[in-house]
Amino acid sequence: MKILFLIPVCLSLILSSCAQRPEPCKSPPLLEGALSAFIPGQHLRVFEKFSYDAYGHNVRVLAAGKEGNQTFFVDRLLLFKEGVNYEIHYHNKTCIKKALKEPFRHIGVPHDAHFLNQMVLGSSSLPEQGLLVNNWNGTVEETKEHYLLTFTAFGCVPLYTLDFTQQGELSVMTSFFDLVEGIEDPNVFIPPSFCDSVEVLPAKGGAGARSFISLL
Amino acid sequence: MKILFLIPVCLSLILSSCAQRPEPCKSPPLLEGALSAFIPGQHLRVFEKFSYDAYGHNVRVLAAGKEGNQTFFVDRLLLFKEGVNYEIHYHNKTCIKKALKEPFRHIGVPHDAHFLNQMVLGSSSLPEQGLLVNNWNGTVEETKEHYLLTFTAFGCVPLYTLDFTQQGELSVMTSFFDLVEGIEDPNVFIPPSFCDSVEVLPAKGGAGARSFISLL
Repeated sequence: MKILFLIPVCLSLILSSCAQRPEPCKSPPLLEGALSAFIPGQHLRVFEKFSYDAYGHNVRVLAAGKEGNQTFFVDRLLLFKEGVNYEIHYHNKTCIKKALKEPFRHIGVPHDAHFLNQMVLGSSSLPEQGLLVNNWNGTVEETKEHYLLTFTAFGCVPLYTLDFTQQGELSVMTSFFDLVEGIEDPNVFIPPSFCDSVEVLPAKGGAGARSFISLL
Repeated sequence: MKILFLIPVCLSLILSSCAQRPEPCKSPPLLEGALSAFIPGQHLRVFEKFSYDAYGHNVRVLAAGKEGNQTFFVDRLLLFKEGVNYEIHYHNKTCIKKALKEPFRHIGVPHDAHFLNQMVLGSSSLPEQGLLVNNWNGTVEETKEHYLLTFTAFGCVPLYTLDFTQQGELSVMTSFFDLVEGIEDPNVFIPPSFCDSVEVLPAKGGAGARSFISLL
């Protein structure tokens, strides 16, 4: 009789302990915010304001950075369903359109990532003094490059990503901040009218799109 | 009449905007938790569990690390009021006591630090998905070395510190996590009895104590 009582108790204990192990996750489908990326190999620092729409597979990025002594600014709209990568220059109303071959990638922890540990950034003693996060690592199947990810334990919000080369050297360090769920102005995903008549050039490596994807 | 009404409104607006600018702050006086430090110049990674008591001016640190291929472990008790730095070896019940000349330093943002900006690590859309933090920089008066600090906006809890050499190169990068307010076991600040009869050696540079202070 006692054993019959113990079986469901043990089962529920096992299940609850399984449930506590974090699972890979997708970030909120609509996100706006900022990221800063550091690419040590190129002595490149990039600051990006981005809008991310995982429903429509759209990304808009305003990127400013410094490569060596040179500063740059890029306004890029990536419409993955349409397959076009827009580089928009409002100051002279010009537009460069390139074919976008890369698939849209959701922000999140890849399904084959390995859970490392959970920690509180800061303190757990009082609210607003710390943040419960999960750390993950893994390898990108196609490139065999390693990554290390930090996402919030609640809500799967990205905080840090570290990408390493096959040789284990840091290639990109990204930190996310000032994020909000939702898109303040849905027009950010509509290309300006002066882009309409511009021809789409074939993608040659698609460096811009790839680099944003690799940053995310 | 209207002007008389406007004066207190303007004054209160000015005051409230002043109040919103963060001020340098001291961290909670009793803290326990972990930190990880990276010292690129020495290819040194250190992981520390520490207990910090700003009332009694006591610090206990269990540090484990890897310097090149060599791992090390140190159990250190710093009693600043007594002026003694204990290195405790439980495995063979031995103790090294050195004079501790350095003053106790509170964890916090130095009074002459310069406020840089406020940001949310992660997202501010839902609770538990982000953390409001303040960034500070400044220069250590004695050494002319620069630092960059990230503390929580509420509670002044340390998150990250970056120390730079005078030449602007990163010397120590520290991140704090799993902190709690309070000391779980106050006995951590009482040296074990096998230390009692040990003589206090004169401080010669006090490398151990200094390095913990520099990490905090």
